Amino acid sequence: MSKIALVGLGLVGRAWAVSFARARHEVAIWDERPETIDDALGFVNRALPDLDAADLLDGEAPLSVRRANSLEDALYGASHVQENTPEDVETKTRVFAELDRLADPEAVLASSTSAILPSAFSEALNGRARCLVAHPINPPYLVPSVEIVPAPWTDPDVVQRTVDLFREARHAPIAMAREIDGFVVNRLQGALLEEAFRLVADGYASTEDVDIAIREGLALRWSFMGPFETIDLNAPGGVRDYAERYQRIYERIFPTVQRRVDWSGAVMDRVEAERRSRLSADQLGERAAWRDRRLMALAQHKKRANEEFGA
Amino acid sequence: MSKIALVGLGLVGRAWAVSFARARHEVAIWDERPETIDDALGFVNRALPDLDAADLLDGEAPLSVRRANSLEDALYGASHVQENTPEDVETKTRVFAELDRLADPEAVLASSTSAILPSAFSEALNGRARCLVAHPINPPYLVPSVEIVPAPWTDPDVVQRTVDLFREARHAPIAMAREIDGFVVNRLQGALLEEAFRLVADGYASTEDVDIAIREGLALRWSFMGPFETIDLNAPGGVRDYAERYQRIYERIFPTVQRRVDWSGAVMDRVEAERRSRLSADQLGERAAWRDRRLMALAQHKKRANEEFGA
Repeated sequence: MSKIALVGLGLVGRAWAVSFARARHEVAIWDERPETIDDALGFVNRALPDLDAADLLDGEAPLSVRRANSLEDALYGASHVQENTPEDVETKTRVFAELDRLADPEAVLASSTSAILPSAFSEALNGRARCLVAHPINPPYLVPSVEIVPAPWTDPDVVQRTVDLFREARHAPIAMAREIDGFVVNRLQGALLEEAFRLVADGYASTEDVDIAIREGLALRWSFMGPFETIDLNAPGGVRDYAERYQRIYERIFPTVQRRVDWSGAVMDRVEAERRSRLSADQLGERAAWRDRRLMALAQHKKRANEEFGA
Repeated sequence: MSKIALVGLGLVGRAWAVSFARARHEVAIWDERPETIDDALGFVNRALPDLDAADLLDGEAPLSVRRANSLEDALYGASHVQENTPEDVETKTRVFAELDRLADPEAVLASSTSAILPSAFSEALNGRARCLVAHPINPPYLVPSVEIVPAPWTDPDVVQRTVDLFREARHAPIAMAREIDGFVVNRLQGALLEEAFRLVADGYASTEDVDIAIREGLALRWSFMGPFETIDLNAPGGVRDYAERYQRIYERIFPTVQRRVDWSGAVMDRVEAERRSRLSADQLGERAAWRDRRLMALAQHKKRANEEFGA
């Protein structure tokens, strides 16, 4: 059991609270806006019984989440600090300077940022060797993957302690060897989205066609195997056989994907119109709640299928 | 109810037999190798009870699949012919010439090819207006998506009849406006795989890290929403808001992905070693059977979740 401090309680911070409470860690939460702490506590107190009902707590009672009275109070005794403040480098730099000054010298300081390299906000800090990024996919208590991204000066022991913490909390950590824009997850997502926007811009497919190709197609096998295991099983001799049989078609495609489409440009009129014809703007929030119910049901399905058929 | 002829009974052809039998079509199957027809019938007779046990037949008894005595016999009266012979343009050209000569003049002639454009094997045929590609993802009776790809001379009515046939058979057809290498599915898969191979080649991630990022991360939401709906729900103002907030990071990544890694080159030594350390070559077949059990369980989960929470 570890003491965890969560700093910043937007969508990501409050979801981490659920994740760490489920893992029976002592979680203290803090945000500069008191009403945000109230919202987060309410969110955690609704989410934990939902997880229990979906058989996703393994029958163990989570510890209750503690409302801190100040940043210092939240950090007191914490061995892992997870920062979830707004996504700009000035904010991260200011917050990390404060965390480095106030936290226990042994504490790991992790940012949830999706878009800022850890080197960009930690370089000047005395404790820069204990800083890194731990980037989740929203909402983290329903999506196991988390990317652990070191700056060039991050201590490898800090990376290992962070990997161990998340793995023990039933997350699936990816320990990157070094930082790169987009890390792994958003580089993979971006590669797919760039092609999706190009196909729509060039009139080969609609936004719904792309969504069908993935949700009724590629993502089914990917959701329990990933793309490398998928191709490993798609040729009799495994992944090398697959590359030898099929890479020619991908080679032929490659020169045709060297042009970037501006996602906010003309193609967005079509993409937005097609999305809004399927889901009006005032239904977005309700649909996000549906997404989380579906993610929870999928997590339950995967748990049972892992038990019945193997992972 | 339609009469369907399946020509060529490898992995794809025999899986189509299950799909069309489930939809209560009259299916006739043919392959030049008699033992392949036996294998296909055995496969269908095992798969249909499995689907029934997983509640994926809706309680309706599928029609039995008929073993044809010749190609002419298979084609007799068929309104849809699905070709599944080996993936080379000479074979497709020869087979389609035969199909065009022997099939009912009103029959649609569809190829399951993943890699050959419909224009490449149909141009010289009298009946070229009735030829197209209907490309599944393996195995089609467990994966709904199917791409309908016309040649420049394909009759739009033929496209529409094919879309209707597959939709009625509980598939999720994507009707492409015109042909392009890789169609939609393999262009999206290729985009993601190119980045996956680059990340491994450059030492940012292992093959397992990439698989975790997808199977414990991105593919969870994608498996019931697709990538466009995912980003539509990932910013308060929907997909346009998402592009405005986050496209800068993807723009910054784009110049770094202009280099293609040879999948069969040096990186393959690492990819293959990592895959074989997780799954030995002699376990590939058994693992493919596991994959199909997982796909069936996932199809059952999605059906129930669609009913309980909405699609």
